[in-house]
Amino acid sequence: MTQDSKSERYKKGFAKLQEVHGKVGEDVLDDLRKTAPALADFIIEYPYGDIYSRPGLDVRSRQIATIAALTAMGNAHEELRVHIQAGINVGLSEEEIIEIIMQMSVYAGFPAAMNGIEAAKEAFENIKTKKNP
Amino acid sequence: MTQDSKSERYKKGFAKLQEVHGKVGEDVLDDLRKTAPALADFIIEYPYGDIYSRPGLDVRSRQIATIAALTAMGNAHEELRVHIQAGINVGLSEEEIIEIIMQMSVYAGFPAAMNGIEAAKEAFENIKTKKNP
Amino acid sequence: MTQDSKSERYKKGFAKLQEVHGKVGEDVLDDLRKTAPALADFIIEYPYGDIYSRPGLDVRSRQIATIAALTAMGNAHEELRVHIQAGINVGLSEEEIIEIIMQMSVYAGFPAAMNGIEAAKEAFENIKTKKNP
Amino acid sequence: MTQDSKSERYKKGFAKLQEVHGKVGEDVLDDLRKTAPALADFIIEYPYGDIYSRPGLDVRSRQIATIAALTAMGNAHEELRVHIQAGINVGLSEEEIIEIIMQMSVYAGFPAAMNGIEAAKEAFENIKTKKNP
Amino acid sequence: MTQDSKSERYKKGFAKLQEVHGKVGEDVLDDLRKTAPALADFIIEYPYGDIYSRPGLDVRSRQIATIAALTAMGNAHEELRVHIQAGINVGLSEEEIIEIIMQMSVYAGFPAAMNGIEAAKEAFENIKTKKNP
Amino acid sequence: MTQDSKSERYKKGFAKLQEVHGKVGEDVLDDLRKTAPALADFIIEYPYGDIYSRPGLDVRSRQIATIAALTAMGNAHEELRVHIQAGINVGLSEEEIIEIIMQMSVYAGFPAAMNGIEAAKEAFENIKTKKNP
Repeated sequence: MTQDSKSERYKKGFAKLQEVHGKVGEDVLDDLRKTAPALADFIIEYPYGDIYSRPGLDVRSRQIATIAALTAMGNAHEELRVHIQAGINVGLSEEEIIEIIMQMSVYAGFPAAMNGIEAAKEAFENIKTKKNP
Repeated sequence: MTQDSKSERYKKGFAKLQEVHGKVGEDVLDDLRKTAPALADFIIEYPYGDIYSRPGLDVRSRQIATIAALTAMGNAHEELRVHIQAGINVGLSEEEIIEIIMQMSVYAGFPAAMNGIEAAKEAFENIKTKKNP
Repeated sequence: MTQDSKSERYKKGFAKLQEVHGKVGEDVLDDLRKTAPALADFIIEYPYGDIYSRPGLDVRSRQIATIAALTAMGNAHEELRVHIQAGINVGLSEEEIIEIIMQMSVYAGFPAAMNGIEAAKEAFENIKTKKNP
Repeated sequence: MTQDSKSERYKKGFAKLQEVHGKVGEDVLDDLRKTAPALADFIIEYPYGDIYSRPGLDVRSRQIATIAALTAMGNAHEELRVHIQAGINVGLSEEEIIEIIMQMSVYAGFPAAMNGIEAAKEAFENIKTKKNP
Repeated sequence: MTQDSKSERYKKGFAKLQEVHGKVGEDVLDDLRKTAPALADFIIEYPYGDIYSRPGLDVRSRQIATIAALTAMGNAHEELRVHIQAGINVGLSEEEIIEIIMQMSVYAGFPAAMNGIEAAKEAFENIKTKKNP
Repeated sequence: MTQDSKSERYKKGFAKLQEVHGKVGEDVLDDLRKTAPALADFIIEYPYGDIYSRPGLDVRSRQIATIAALTAMGNAHEELRVHIQAGINVGLSEEEIIEIIMQMSVYAGFPAAMNGIEAAKEAFENIKTKKNP
């Protein structure tokens, strides 16, 4: 059986999702899928299949951009925490992540940065807990 | 005459401002200084003297974070344009900048990304005009 | 005793509040009234008495607009949940509400849409729990 | 020669773009394509091919949601104007559009609503100019 | 002939609008009235008739709150400029207004503050131009 | 031993932090310091040492501006609660704070104002609990 191109985007996106987020990404999408299965598919296909898989920017730089944006916008604490964990996965150090978030005090104000640091604290603890259960 | 620490922060910030923005940064601050001189000083001291000068994150990564945040927030078109020009100054390619902005469609929506691309177009044209007058 | 026009706006608004939200709307305002009674009155008078009662747009269309806006702004999770329950009250299907929220991924990004879906999940569960206790 | 599924999404999206926006949509994307061709393709494929083409919500309701969200967010005046023109295309009356925007005073404040009315004024004039040149 | 309460709110609001904004407020609303007459009425009745006319907070303090909020939100440059002019009308000094706006760098970031200073510059020039024509 | 100027800004900022927030401010920063010690220092130095300590605007007016901005932005519930408690510390009455927050319904919408009132309720309860344990 041949697979159509949608499946190609989906497969490419799913592989990228796992590379960036590990098991956490699947868990988030499995939860979303119960209420909005199409949105879970779209997230695999567009952000991960189309955008994150593009060759013009390395995944470490992409994760810097995402952590900065979610800290600055301040509308999605859980997603920020998940993307900070992903930042560690793709090679950012804890120190670099703290620097990205602190820098957002300049562009989005100190409360946004303080909330970003709280998300980082939670993300770093999540990683430690799973590594040393 | 010895200079006090405020002057140290200011001098460090001013050097960093020139490294990141070249002459453009001074022009923006000179205009601001006419109405709010203290804010112009604070911008040199805090964002550039305190934050951008920190060693924990390279300036290329800092500029990725800033371009992402300003595109996502969408509240400061001129500042975004100036920071895209700075992105070129610190070693980002036009392609990388386009990728950062396109990625913001995922986190802040397509209109924010489209407006970011417009700022990039203006920034790239500004650079070309000055190079080849 | 005749009632003045403020009472007319209030009465019209209170009837519209009940039409749109049922008992839930009163509960939210009763809680608000303990700290800011004037704001509770203003909410009945302006949003419900003045705006929602206008004839130029049907209440189903008004609820689409509100669910879209609150999902996109992402600053009021509880209010979004309450307005999703109201969407069901005024004739939107669960499927239509999910579509409205998913569409916000285009204009406000995927994290805003994901948080909107979470609010929808909570709203749908609230309705089921009360119907089948 | 058979076309692959990406072309199917693109073709479906392009047809929907024309249905919703007429010639205006293509003009906007042609301008975007000069700087970020991939983003122009993504806009045809995801918002129009994937989202607007879904059967679960009629296009009139989708346009209500978009006009509401862009008015409330207030970060994209041009896109709002283009989507108001599209609202007329898909069957909303000028009066209904004004009602949607006025309602946003409740959720996003009066300045956002006032700016939305300004975009509506421009959109209505654009339509009249082209109809009666 | 007795006037109904809507007229009372409207008259109270119109007097407050003139106190706060002088002739400028009427000009802004006259322009709005051409496209959305009901919204112009609502603005006189709710923000000025209901809110600004309340006794619990002096009008100078109210104007501080409005200038701060519009600077921080950054979505309404014209309205901010008009409210800065109103700040002068109700007794704030230019210096105090600059301080309010600079303080927003802390809560909303430096770009928002810089844009607020630009609005202040325009407002101060408008006032001077009209005083010394 | 002489202290350098950084210590001067820090000492001035720390004194201002205590004046505005009492013990609460230190508690918030002590928690932040565990993850991002530099950000805790920057908050003492810039917002409190540089901005709040400036003579051009009294601290009561500064607190009005901050409560208004945080209510309008709606991205930092905890910080808003802390700044409402600080508003009481610097001489605002509960009634004045409620008025500031209600006024934000005009500029940022009713959901933002309702969430602000919730933060005020929590702040007023915190103060009462500590006074009458």
